[in-house]
Amino acid sequence: MVQAQKYDPRTFKALTFYDALPAFRSGKDTPRAYLERCIAETEAREPVVQAFANINFESSRTAADASTKRWADGKPLSAIDGMPVGIKDLLETKDMPTEMNCAAMAGNFPKRDNPAVWALREAGAVIYGKTVTAELGGAHPGPTTNPFDKARTPGGSSSGSAAAVAARMLPAAIGSQVGGSIIRPAGYCGNVALKPTQGAINRGERMATSMSTHGVHAGSIEDMWQVAIEIALRAGGDRGSPGLFGTLTPPEAIKPQRLIVLETEGWASLDDASKTAFEMFLESLKELGITVRRRQEDADVEMLERALGQASRIAAGITGWENRWYQRNLAGADGAGISARALAVLERAEAMTPRDYRALLVERECAQLAHARLAPLADAAITLSCPGPAPLWLGDKPGEPLASRPTGNAIFNYASSICFAPVVGVPLMSVGGLPVGIQVMGQQHEDARVTAIARWLLENATPVVQD
Amino acid sequence: MVQAQKYDPRTFKALTFYDALPAFRSGKDTPRAYLERCIAETEAREPVVQAFANINFESSRTAADASTKRWADGKPLSAIDGMPVGIKDLLETKDMPTEMNCAAMAGNFPKRDNPAVWALREAGAVIYGKTVTAELGGAHPGPTTNPFDKARTPGGSSSGSAAAVAARMLPAAIGSQVGGSIIRPAGYCGNVALKPTQGAINRGERMATSMSTHGVHAGSIEDMWQVAIEIALRAGGDRGSPGLFGTLTPPEAIKPQRLIVLETEGWASLDDASKTAFEMFLESLKELGITVRRRQEDADVEMLERALGQASRIAAGITGWENRWYQRNLAGADGAGISARALAVLERAEAMTPRDYRALLVERECAQLAHARLAPLADAAITLSCPGPAPLWLGDKPGEPLASRPTGNAIFNYASSICFAPVVGVPLMSVGGLPVGIQVMGQQHEDARVTAIARWLLENATPVVQD
Repeated sequence: MVQAQKYDPRTFKALTFYDALPAFRSGKDTPRAYLERCIAETEAREPVVQAFANINFESSRTAADASTKRWADGKPLSAIDGMPVGIKDLLETKDMPTEMNCAAMAGNFPKRDNPAVWALREAGAVIYGKTVTAELGGAHPGPTTNPFDKARTPGGSSSGSAAAVAARMLPAAIGSQVGGSIIRPAGYCGNVALKPTQGAINRGERMATSMSTHGVHAGSIEDMWQVAIEIALRAGGDRGSPGLFGTLTPPEAIKPQRLIVLETEGWASLDDASKTAFEMFLESLKELGITVRRRQEDADVEMLERALGQASRIAAGITGWENRWYQRNLAGADGAGISARALAVLERAEAMTPRDYRALLVERECAQLAHARLAPLADAAITLSCPGPAPLWLGDKPGEPLASRPTGNAIFNYASSICFAPVVGVPLMSVGGLPVGIQVMGQQHEDARVTAIARWLLENATPVVQD
Repeated sequence: MVQAQKYDPRTFKALTFYDALPAFRSGKDTPRAYLERCIAETEAREPVVQAFANINFESSRTAADASTKRWADGKPLSAIDGMPVGIKDLLETKDMPTEMNCAAMAGNFPKRDNPAVWALREAGAVIYGKTVTAELGGAHPGPTTNPFDKARTPGGSSSGSAAAVAARMLPAAIGSQVGGSIIRPAGYCGNVALKPTQGAINRGERMATSMSTHGVHAGSIEDMWQVAIEIALRAGGDRGSPGLFGTLTPPEAIKPQRLIVLETEGWASLDDASKTAFEMFLESLKELGITVRRRQEDADVEMLERALGQASRIAAGITGWENRWYQRNLAGADGAGISARALAVLERAEAMTPRDYRALLVERECAQLAHARLAPLADAAITLSCPGPAPLWLGDKPGEPLASRPTGNAIFNYASSICFAPVVGVPLMSVGGLPVGIQVMGQQHEDARVTAIARWLLENATPVVQD
């Protein structure tokens, strides 16, 4: 068993795949050997990290052998041919159950692939395992621990995807986000991550809510982009959406000229050490010649902050309403099919009316309009991915009220979620030896541009280490 | 067994519910007695019409008895308390299987209610049975025959819902439409019908494609509206949609001042007798003082016709693409899980790329924009619901190529479908003793206004009878 190490963004080396391709081509390395290294790392870390709901070693080895032969024949299916990928256990997979960490879904095994999973297989990727999700993608945690401190949450709901990448078990994993379920755990786990424009990656049967998206956790921005575009190339976007726009290779770095700092509702929850670290990071950007605009000095930014200032209420109301029939059916008449934590959310939603929901949709659309109208102000917006390092989580205590937010606080994530905006999370800070992510947010369909700006930051900005 | 009769829109009396309420209040009639009349009619007609995949007599009687008690107590849940309603067998119902007339779905019985079904029960309606759908809502027919001629199709895919209402077995039934699956069968069966604005009625798990909608088949415009608004009042619209707008009682009639005639792609497929009948109908509108604008005399209308001129290609491409993963999983590797007719559609979709799909979405959005921009031209648009009476359908012949369009041609329905526009079908013509429907189309979210205009036509226009 390998012990978790303190996290330092200057020295941490995540697992990467894109740089293995030359060795696959030359025969010095093979996808099968790559897979066996992932399996070895999994065997070392998984007993503590518990990132997986299921691992399919047999089909992974079969797929890796087929990929090895394709590379040997000089005929890989794509630039991710042979990449072992984890799949959040909300997405259906034909060779593994989909149990969603929910009592009512125990044994659910529909033996079909979500379109994103289908596309990954078509691209030659190895569908390695199902990663632990918070129950139904909500707030009730699974067993996964933070790879940098087993007493802390990895974040949620894409808990296992974030942790598997952080523990170097995998180079990439699929997550999904409604409120903050990709970017927050990525921030707590030091991942690079993409929460794309709403609808940019085909959710298939997982069109759970009007602002849920598939996304990617990865050890590098190259792998992050390649996974996303290989899926979109084959399966496109959601029904009614144009799908992910961008090049078939990772976008080149673009230096931003102007960035907006969005404090969002999250600022009030931000801990002092993380605030200090972020302010240091912003200072370093100015030293690199980037103009940074904030609400205190720019009335337009202040207007945008106000337009996004109710994001958490809007997101919670919309999501609760949209899930109510589905979750009530799972809960059953006695509520026993889901956790007490989820049941409380459901009961709040069941007190809403269609008019309450309609009003929230109008509020969401107004926020989107304000965000779009202010696009010319800056190349992108920047903020934290989470209000500090991953919090401690040692489980609910019997007889006591349910602990609030066991997978951390998504307070920095709702703004981009309600704007349907693309976000890339970048691991450029540590606080007290734990990751605290930063996110770059763009306008709808600017996923490639946001990725290019995030890449520039990863390649040029100075990571901040704060005790 | 009751013989089918020739259809005459001047004399045909459909089953109605709204006018039974005074007798429920006074105790002269009861929902249980109403139900027993529906059952008697079903026993008389169903052996030939075959509208139902399932009827739940026991739970219907239990629900009708409970409704009877509520009316006796002066405490009905809504204006449809006690109404027997049929549910298209694409929507899940907790007390009946949902088999979608598809081999791969045989035995499917998830024991949960679609939100629209849940809302109907909350309003006190009696969930009478599951109505036959063409396979998976596509083109492969079920056993249902046209109530006015058993050698003809009732239309599809909402075959059983249209036929159950036409045969006076029920006052209303839920249908659904992607291309033309509500309005076409309503046109062939002499129903009043609502295909609402895209997203106006919560589809729940049936968010199959980006232009599928739930809708209502009914014997009267009063019952049609009441069913729709009672659902929307409780379950709202689709995720991300504001839901049906309108009053809690049927809109009063509004006389239109100006109507656009939309010939659409359908005009080229229209038979001569139906064309003559429709021209007579338009003449009668002019005699009522309504201005009628057509492409030949108005450049704006001509522009709109051109903007909608590719609707069938756009609709077919988008729908095929959006169904491909779901239907491939049902079809299985050997294709045996679905009909040869559906498999051919699936294989065409599997030859498409995400870019083909994206291009179609842009075309669809351009058509929507043209339709919206021309809103000030007229109060509504009017056209036929189908290119003539229901065609003969006696089944595929073994050894011969599959007959095309066994449930009729949706060529008049694609324009409103791609525009996400509300449409009300009105039974105001017969040709050769069979219904040929007319439809009124409005702008998105104008469902109540379109209903009011359709109501005016039903109450004031002279029905046309053409041999």
